[in-house]
Amino acid sequence: MRYVVGVDVGGTNIVVGTVAEDGSEVLGVVSEPTLSDHGADAVVARIVKLAHASIAEAPGKEIAGVGIGSPGPLNTKTGVVLLTPNLGWTNMPLRNRVAGALGLPATLDNDANCAIFGEWWRGAARGAEYVVGLTIGTGIGGGIVLGGQIYHGVSDVAGEFGHMTIDLAGRRCKCGNYGCLEAYASGPAIAARAVEGIEAGADTALPQYVEGDLAKITAQVVYEAAHDGDAYALDMVRETAKLLGVGVANILNIFNPEVVVICGGVTLAGDKLFAPLQSEVQRRAFKPAWEACRIVPGALQGTAGVYGAAAVFMQRTWGLGGGGTC
Amino acid sequence: MRYVVGVDVGGTNIVVGTVAEDGSEVLGVVSEPTLSDHGADAVVARIVKLAHASIAEAPGKEIAGVGIGSPGPLNTKTGVVLLTPNLGWTNMPLRNRVAGALGLPATLDNDANCAIFGEWWRGAARGAEYVVGLTIGTGIGGGIVLGGQIYHGVSDVAGEFGHMTIDLAGRRCKCGNYGCLEAYASGPAIAARAVEGIEAGADTALPQYVEGDLAKITAQVVYEAAHDGDAYALDMVRETAKLLGVGVANILNIFNPEVVVICGGVTLAGDKLFAPLQSEVQRRAFKPAWEACRIVPGALQGTAGVYGAAAVFMQRTWGLGGGGTC
Repeated sequence: MRYVVGVDVGGTNIVVGTVAEDGSEVLGVVSEPTLSDHGADAVVARIVKLAHASIAEAPGKEIAGVGIGSPGPLNTKTGVVLLTPNLGWTNMPLRNRVAGALGLPATLDNDANCAIFGEWWRGAARGAEYVVGLTIGTGIGGGIVLGGQIYHGVSDVAGEFGHMTIDLAGRRCKCGNYGCLEAYASGPAIAARAVEGIEAGADTALPQYVEGDLAKITAQVVYEAAHDGDAYALDMVRETAKLLGVGVANILNIFNPEVVVICGGVTLAGDKLFAPLQSEVQRRAFKPAWEACRIVPGALQGTAGVYGAAAVFMQRTWGLGGGGTC
Repeated sequence: MRYVVGVDVGGTNIVVGTVAEDGSEVLGVVSEPTLSDHGADAVVARIVKLAHASIAEAPGKEIAGVGIGSPGPLNTKTGVVLLTPNLGWTNMPLRNRVAGALGLPATLDNDANCAIFGEWWRGAARGAEYVVGLTIGTGIGGGIVLGGQIYHGVSDVAGEFGHMTIDLAGRRCKCGNYGCLEAYASGPAIAARAVEGIEAGADTALPQYVEGDLAKITAQVVYEAAHDGDAYALDMVRETAKLLGVGVANILNIFNPEVVVICGGVTLAGDKLFAPLQSEVQRRAFKPAWEACRIVPGALQGTAGVYGAAAVFMQRTWGLGGGGTC
């Protein structure tokens, strides 16, 4: 049994684990803040340190290589990250730098692609032929897995569901456009919408969760207040669910998938989110598409990207076994 | 050289032609109004009559079968049209009825899928690996051709780009939802938007094109007036282009395609439409997706669906040669 180190580079944290080739286990899951403002060299050094730490927890195992998932856009063939506003990288040869430092072969793919590929391989979409997923956090990423293969498009930037316009003249998005799904339903967007309502006089206990400092309101705080029964926070969660439902309905009408997997912190809101999301999708999607599709939270909370990044390495190197259909 | 009859069943017209297996020619292109209100039997009889007329113009040719494109949703395996509000059919075994009447094997696929497949096989997207297309007429249909295969999704209803929400709380669509692309940019929607503006007092010569009967304004009339320099009609075309641009930008961010093909009457507006459409896409789509993609009008005006329907038969029966990459 061979093992592959999976590296999930996020805007906030780096997570690394050592994954068995049959997907039966992940050893040595370790994590540290990315601290991208320390520069690219520091981030590479942190990845290498975490990889060594993870491998150390898999003593005696044959380590065949490293699969890396990173924000993009990036080039899967050259292993170069082209541009990441969040990490501050431009034309960064991430794959070769990590491979060189570890003395192991490596692959690079988009972080959201890896997360959804992981969910297909070992998680909530296991074995399904037509899988589309969203990763919802600081931004909204997406992944498309068709017939057990990540769909990349012609220049590796497919699946950017976060920048699907759902509201023509809507909220300004960080990308410069208006009405992107991400401008409504990413973690920071949820927090921003909540704060706007409070500033407009909404009746809510939310400020008490942050000692009156509205800048400290995050999506997690909104979910917590909703969980405690705060009506305004509940409204925010419901509204977020409906907005996500618009995006997911578009996905159903476009892809007619078997499974839509939703990953990330937003799934912490549980049924408070999924029930109204499902209703909105049912209302908007074509009936045959709705009837054919499961909409589910990711099952590999925190490690989907690690599993998926490792699986990308395995699939490109020796073909993927043990998990899904391919 | 074998020939296949391609049948394109539309809400308004049926078009039939006899296509050479290498795609080098289409013989006997004939067309009649669908007249679906005469009932399913009459439509089938009309298809059969047109097929005989087309075959008669291909004397001495070996006719191997019939490929049919029809509005859906439909089941490509059973050849049954499940439901077509426009044609008034429910669970209509179109493939077997046509096959039986002609004594030829037949296949059935979605009309928009066929049109985009035709454009991939012999038209504007020839040989491209990642093709997404829109067919814009009474409604807005879509087709996805990846690696020389129509992408159907898990229950044959993928590619419904017309019912992608682009405006959350926007115009009511015939499908019952709000803000679908089709509610803005289909032929009837373009006409409806033009009439609304006139009723609100817009300064335009458009009523003179229809002797004051605003109910007679069609998208074609709007293009004609725009061509003649009517400023209001030009604004309508530009606005339509921007709305289509939002939908096409979503397609770029989701599929990262090589080619987006736009088929149908709307392309008659030419550069008046394509120039502002391209600008809107460039403004909204990710740069690497924009840089990788051509956005082009269909090249097989009127026969894309015929070519594509025949090509579907060929691909399923003996594998497609002579044209694209597969």
